[in-house]
Amino acid sequence: MTEPAPTGPPADVVALRRDLHRHPEVGFTEFRTASRAAGRLADLGWQVAAGAPVLDADARLGVPDDAELAEAYQRAADSGADPRYLPALRGGLTGVVARLRGSRPGPVLAFRADLDALPLDESDADEHAPSRLGFRSGWAGRMHACGHDGHVAVALALADRLIDRDFPGEVRLILQPAEEGGRGGAAMVAAGVVDDVDVFVAPHLGMGLPTGTICTDVAGLLANSKLRAVFRGAAAHASMAPEHGRHALLGAAAATLAVHTMPSFSGHQTRVNVGALHGGTVSNIVPDRAELRLETRADDGDVNAELERRVRRMLAGAAGTYGLDVDVELIGAVTTAGNDPAVTAALGAAADRIGVTVGAPGAGIGSDDATAFMRRVQDRGGVAGYFGIGASSPAPHHSGTFDLDEAALPLAVDLLESLVRNQTVPE
Amino acid sequence: MTEPAPTGPPADVVALRRDLHRHPEVGFTEFRTASRAAGRLADLGWQVAAGAPVLDADARLGVPDDAELAEAYQRAADSGADPRYLPALRGGLTGVVARLRGSRPGPVLAFRADLDALPLDESDADEHAPSRLGFRSGWAGRMHACGHDGHVAVALALADRLIDRDFPGEVRLILQPAEEGGRGGAAMVAAGVVDDVDVFVAPHLGMGLPTGTICTDVAGLLANSKLRAVFRGAAAHASMAPEHGRHALLGAAAATLAVHTMPSFSGHQTRVNVGALHGGTVSNIVPDRAELRLETRADDGDVNAELERRVRRMLAGAAGTYGLDVDVELIGAVTTAGNDPAVTAALGAAADRIGVTVGAPGAGIGSDDATAFMRRVQDRGGVAGYFGIGASSPAPHHSGTFDLDEAALPLAVDLLESLVRNQTVPE
Amino acid sequence: MTEPAPTGPPADVVALRRDLHRHPEVGFTEFRTASRAAGRLADLGWQVAAGAPVLDADARLGVPDDAELAEAYQRAADSGADPRYLPALRGGLTGVVARLRGSRPGPVLAFRADLDALPLDESDADEHAPSRLGFRSGWAGRMHACGHDGHVAVALALADRLIDRDFPGEVRLILQPAEEGGRGGAAMVAAGVVDDVDVFVAPHLGMGLPTGTICTDVAGLLANSKLRAVFRGAAAHASMAPEHGRHALLGAAAATLAVHTMPSFSGHQTRVNVGALHGGTVSNIVPDRAELRLETRADDGDVNAELERRVRRMLAGAAGTYGLDVDVELIGAVTTAGNDPAVTAALGAAADRIGVTVGAPGAGIGSDDATAFMRRVQDRGGVAGYFGIGASSPAPHHSGTFDLDEAALPLAVDLLESLVRNQTVPE
Amino acid sequence: MTEPAPTGPPADVVALRRDLHRHPEVGFTEFRTASRAAGRLADLGWQVAAGAPVLDADARLGVPDDAELAEAYQRAADSGADPRYLPALRGGLTGVVARLRGSRPGPVLAFRADLDALPLDESDADEHAPSRLGFRSGWAGRMHACGHDGHVAVALALADRLIDRDFPGEVRLILQPAEEGGRGGAAMVAAGVVDDVDVFVAPHLGMGLPTGTICTDVAGLLANSKLRAVFRGAAAHASMAPEHGRHALLGAAAATLAVHTMPSFSGHQTRVNVGALHGGTVSNIVPDRAELRLETRADDGDVNAELERRVRRMLAGAAGTYGLDVDVELIGAVTTAGNDPAVTAALGAAADRIGVTVGAPGAGIGSDDATAFMRRVQDRGGVAGYFGIGASSPAPHHSGTFDLDEAALPLAVDLLESLVRNQTVPE
Repeated sequence: MTEPAPTGPPADVVALRRDLHRHPEVGFTEFRTASRAAGRLADLGWQVAAGAPVLDADARLGVPDDAELAEAYQRAADSGADPRYLPALRGGLTGVVARLRGSRPGPVLAFRADLDALPLDESDADEHAPSRLGFRSGWAGRMHACGHDGHVAVALALADRLIDRDFPGEVRLILQPAEEGGRGGAAMVAAGVVDDVDVFVAPHLGMGLPTGTICTDVAGLLANSKLRAVFRGAAAHASMAPEHGRHALLGAAAATLAVHTMPSFSGHQTRVNVGALHGGTVSNIVPDRAELRLETRADDGDVNAELERRVRRMLAGAAGTYGLDVDVELIGAVTTAGNDPAVTAALGAAADRIGVTVGAPGAGIGSDDATAFMRRVQDRGGVAGYFGIGASSPAPHHSGTFDLDEAALPLAVDLLESLVRNQTVPE
Repeated sequence: MTEPAPTGPPADVVALRRDLHRHPEVGFTEFRTASRAAGRLADLGWQVAAGAPVLDADARLGVPDDAELAEAYQRAADSGADPRYLPALRGGLTGVVARLRGSRPGPVLAFRADLDALPLDESDADEHAPSRLGFRSGWAGRMHACGHDGHVAVALALADRLIDRDFPGEVRLILQPAEEGGRGGAAMVAAGVVDDVDVFVAPHLGMGLPTGTICTDVAGLLANSKLRAVFRGAAAHASMAPEHGRHALLGAAAATLAVHTMPSFSGHQTRVNVGALHGGTVSNIVPDRAELRLETRADDGDVNAELERRVRRMLAGAAGTYGLDVDVELIGAVTTAGNDPAVTAALGAAADRIGVTVGAPGAGIGSDDATAFMRRVQDRGGVAGYFGIGASSPAPHHSGTFDLDEAALPLAVDLLESLVRNQTVPE
Repeated sequence: MTEPAPTGPPADVVALRRDLHRHPEVGFTEFRTASRAAGRLADLGWQVAAGAPVLDADARLGVPDDAELAEAYQRAADSGADPRYLPALRGGLTGVVARLRGSRPGPVLAFRADLDALPLDESDADEHAPSRLGFRSGWAGRMHACGHDGHVAVALALADRLIDRDFPGEVRLILQPAEEGGRGGAAMVAAGVVDDVDVFVAPHLGMGLPTGTICTDVAGLLANSKLRAVFRGAAAHASMAPEHGRHALLGAAAATLAVHTMPSFSGHQTRVNVGALHGGTVSNIVPDRAELRLETRADDGDVNAELERRVRRMLAGAAGTYGLDVDVELIGAVTTAGNDPAVTAALGAAADRIGVTVGAPGAGIGSDDATAFMRRVQDRGGVAGYFGIGASSPAPHHSGTFDLDEAALPLAVDLLESLVRNQTVPE
Repeated sequence: MTEPAPTGPPADVVALRRDLHRHPEVGFTEFRTASRAAGRLADLGWQVAAGAPVLDADARLGVPDDAELAEAYQRAADSGADPRYLPALRGGLTGVVARLRGSRPGPVLAFRADLDALPLDESDADEHAPSRLGFRSGWAGRMHACGHDGHVAVALALADRLIDRDFPGEVRLILQPAEEGGRGGAAMVAAGVVDDVDVFVAPHLGMGLPTGTICTDVAGLLANSKLRAVFRGAAAHASMAPEHGRHALLGAAAATLAVHTMPSFSGHQTRVNVGALHGGTVSNIVPDRAELRLETRADDGDVNAELERRVRRMLAGAAGTYGLDVDVELIGAVTTAGNDPAVTAALGAAADRIGVTVGAPGAGIGSDDATAFMRRVQDRGGVAGYFGIGASSPAPHHSGTFDLDEAALPLAVDLLESLVRNQTVPE
């Protein structure tokens, strides 16, 4: 191989993560991230597929509009995207699957790493390590604030470790776009990328766990529905003829308050949130349009469906109150899934081997569309697990000062490597 | 004069208006509009001043940010702005004053024409004449929906008529930026442009009056305060730790409803409106920032001050309710003013001379910072009037299908010319 | 007639008023007030009809429930009601009409006096004259806070003056229940009590006018709709199973805010108010019922109808938002009416005769179901007027410290007497 | 003793319960219930104390006003209250403690039974057993809908069983007023009634458990704060001068919505509820007063304190928004407490002895101020437990169709008796 891998010496997981951190790309715009990962994996000898073969375009939810996709594509092209793989990703087909067969027979073991960043401004405070050390997000309004940069870096570092092929069966790396919002996982499942997987594992860094620990059995993954609601009224001059207006913001404001009055459901964990409200331009026009982005979550799919039903009723009611029309669109959906004891046990054993502490089963209260993969694998007879790898952070996930303790990254690589190499292969 | 005026044959008021209509520029970005008007006036022999000498930069309210100013400046430069005057306007100093002395002694008679468009999308329906006839706004999200294009065209056509100097005293054309929102008038007043004016007249096209009529005594100009309120809370993961968030949209929503519950004031015309609310990005983050744009109006300055006081209390209360901070900034302010009978009478006489019907005194319910000029002129011993020139429109001002009956434009020029030429000059 | 009139020497209008003030009775419970007035009028020789003959029971709106009627009836019986007339009023038929024919031919001239008090606690402060002088309301939660005590006292004193029959035609006194809320006037109109009236006059004391003045042309009487809305949800233990509840107060609260966001209507005076909200008992039950009392007003019947339509839409929308049912009932309705110049002129002449100043035409902004009588009289060819008689008050109508300057009472009697005696009788 | 016990043959627990059910009395008005229980216990030979000696009047929360207390007192006097004990209870001192020493040394074992009913209308449907069988509440607006009638009946039946004194130590029956709302327990604790208790047990019937089972370890008892908030504004005529009003209902409505937007607290069970909102009288007055009753709950005292802090902030903020004053009063407070394993085990053993099934540890989500006693006993070295005794019900607690399967009552008596007689007495 004469061409160097694009992002530095093979195993430097920290450097990999910092490069990704500097270049955060949100869901379905991970053109640089995915193309460079695909190129590096190919250079290492993995069999790589990218774009349409591994992602059912029609099964995606909440895809950005063409202009945003085109702008992000160009930005990636200008910022070191791998030209060998970039074209395949055009239009937001930013999924990658890489396979490597081991030197002996065995099961198909798949890891999921998610590629996307969040639409947040990253802190520029000196106490924030990425800022102080110079690898803060270079792109305003986008930030790796959930550790996915670490996930991809760990996957690539693991890929490097495994090129000796000294493991049973096949290792498959699934690089998924648009985990945030539950918009990309189901599209890769629909393309069949885990249909033949025996063991599926989705690690997540951070999760409030300190470096040096893992939680092998993260429970509490919530079902999640994400909605976009557009209220439409009628514009009018706010002073000369306010009565001719139908004020979209009043409906949107009433809906925002209403959604947040959702009661707790006894015996369940439930959540609702209106995360965005945008409407109107100037102060003297009755605004004719307002848009909400909101979500529901529950630890049970039926309860989440009931929450979604009630939210839709609230949106319709608020629209009716203020004489508006409202369109509601599902833009993200995540199901629940449970961990198989076999996976939990294998993770615990790997942790023991490398000297990492296994913490108590943890009740998360987030959502992850890793569950889409898990359900498919379990439905087809395989086993699956979702687990947390401690990486101390000074701030919670999804905040502008979130950071990963980089000491956790090599531990994560070690753990996954140990899992791969020590599989019990049924006779 | 060998160089042709930039926008067509001198008196073609309709062509002038259509060119302006195609190139709408919002407040303080009227770089093309103002520079071309300045150039044309200079070419006609008027004495022209533009930018800082006629506009106190610090007295402006609600100036766009530097990026928006720079982008608009460049767009103007690329679209036919007059390079002789463009640089003087840089940074949003988009005011112009032109003077022409008549052939005999007499008073200083000033006309105000406002330059700015609105941040609206113009209709592309076939029934909408500008669309059907090909002079619809070429710039998305901006539209001349209040007739200011007509005001400038009429002023320029009048300027052409008057170059024979066959009138007493001085005629002064005041081309004002940012009338919408009451952001520019006071800045020109602060620069002294009407300090020596004897008679100030501000015509407005449309106003619900049919073509062929005028209203010489528009009353009901409202005092107006425009506010920008920024709510700041704390972001958090909406599912994992919602209790750590302080939800800026809840406060903004509660404030929006609260402001609109403002009672009517007995014996007065009062108005409030929240015209814009923007906050948050994605559905699963507790949003930490939300911004409102809102206004109050009243037919009495003290009542408007009370409305503003109550709105500020509501904003503070809603912020407190949801544990937020709020900053409130005044971004526009208009006072009230009354018409002097001398001006009303002179307008009526001019209308009679040209065969235009004088309608009943009209109670408008808008605001116009022409009142800033009127008050100054009146305070210094001059007289002032604000009047409406009928121009039938299929739709109300500030809507995407507003239009001016172009037959009104030459009538308006005739009327103003008649006013200029027939002044009674005190001995 | 040997039996003395029950409430004191004939013309002591102040004593009459104080007796009434001490015994305030709300709409359709004016058993003591109406029966004693009927008795006194009969004792004076007027022809008196009370109850069903002068009031269409089915045309009443917002009648109290049987228990409240019975309790009030008993209280009246125990407090000096006139037993000759009390039984006819049972069940809330508390209207009275008295007629007296003059000594010569002429028109039928009717005066309306309203009988009812308000559900308010009267101030017990020393500065409040009724309290200081010992004629404060003796019945908690009820108060003559709109001057109707004065209206009835003036009508009775006038009745005494006129027993000489030295006037043309017929004078008719219409004592109307339940003016507050617009609930009783239409029922008397429906019974035909003004069908043959030539001139209808409704005086109102106070109205912000100083003693010694009258306003002969009160404009701005607003159309008014009063509504009762009952929201019904489902109760649940607020802690153990909140999700099983449908929270009636949330819908009622959202509706309250929504109604108050009603925009002003350009060119009109409009008003909305939610005056009462009652729901729930204890803190730990999701309340299943909430009741609103609210109203709309406008200076135009069509605009008021549009307000009512929007309010009903808001109530339905708020109910839908929170999964509730809502029943909305019209419990009061008042129309608009204008004053005939003949009446206005006659009042002005009367004022001149007795030395009372005629003020400017006044724009009230209240409602009075005198308009029901006015419309009927005008529809049948008669003339009508609503006017204000100054009676200085330290506090606004409908407040706990409202009071009438009693010096206005004899002036009012003089004015009405002068009107009666000086009618121009068409040949 | 020749005088028969007032409510029937000693052990007829069903008859006792039905008599109580027919005569429901809400918190601090349990004059009939408490006096008759005291009388019966005295008649059985128990040492009885009632009123001030067992209840610190100043430590009560949410005591009804004097009029309500007096009315309830009279009603009880008229309905069979025991005149020997009634006077001691006057003013809402409705606590009773009865003691009986066993025939041998041993610990002090206390049972708590709560006396109060709820302010609910009981169903009169035929399917509702108390209605069908003729022991439905005789007092409108009050109902034993939480099983406290059963608790008292069981305690009295137990008292009868134990008069042989064949048990160690002392049995103490604590009959507590005002458990609903957490208003009475702390007042009895403050009077010292459990200061010398070794074992404290609070049974609760129902709780969703089927007859024939018990839950020996009810967890999830929530800390609870109950608040009364009174908003005060200014009244005004809603049409003539709405701007002079300060609208108390708008603030109360905004507060109601705000409180219900309280986020879930991750890792905790939390609840908020606005259970009542009352304000205003008629539709045309701006209401100047509105009252809320609301509560917070959490499975952790600190979290509940934070909820209460936020609710108070919301109330203050909503008041400020609408220019109101607000007074907030704590009217109920319950803490959390845990069960001691010794008590849990003893209950399980008793259940085994009498053949009742012990269910899984249950996570309730209610509150009970039994926790006030439990904490005091535990703080002074004793042990305590709160447990559920199955009693199938067709409807949830606190609903108008709640009922107890009466077959559970003798089982409950058996269970408690077995617990009393089989205590392990430390040597």
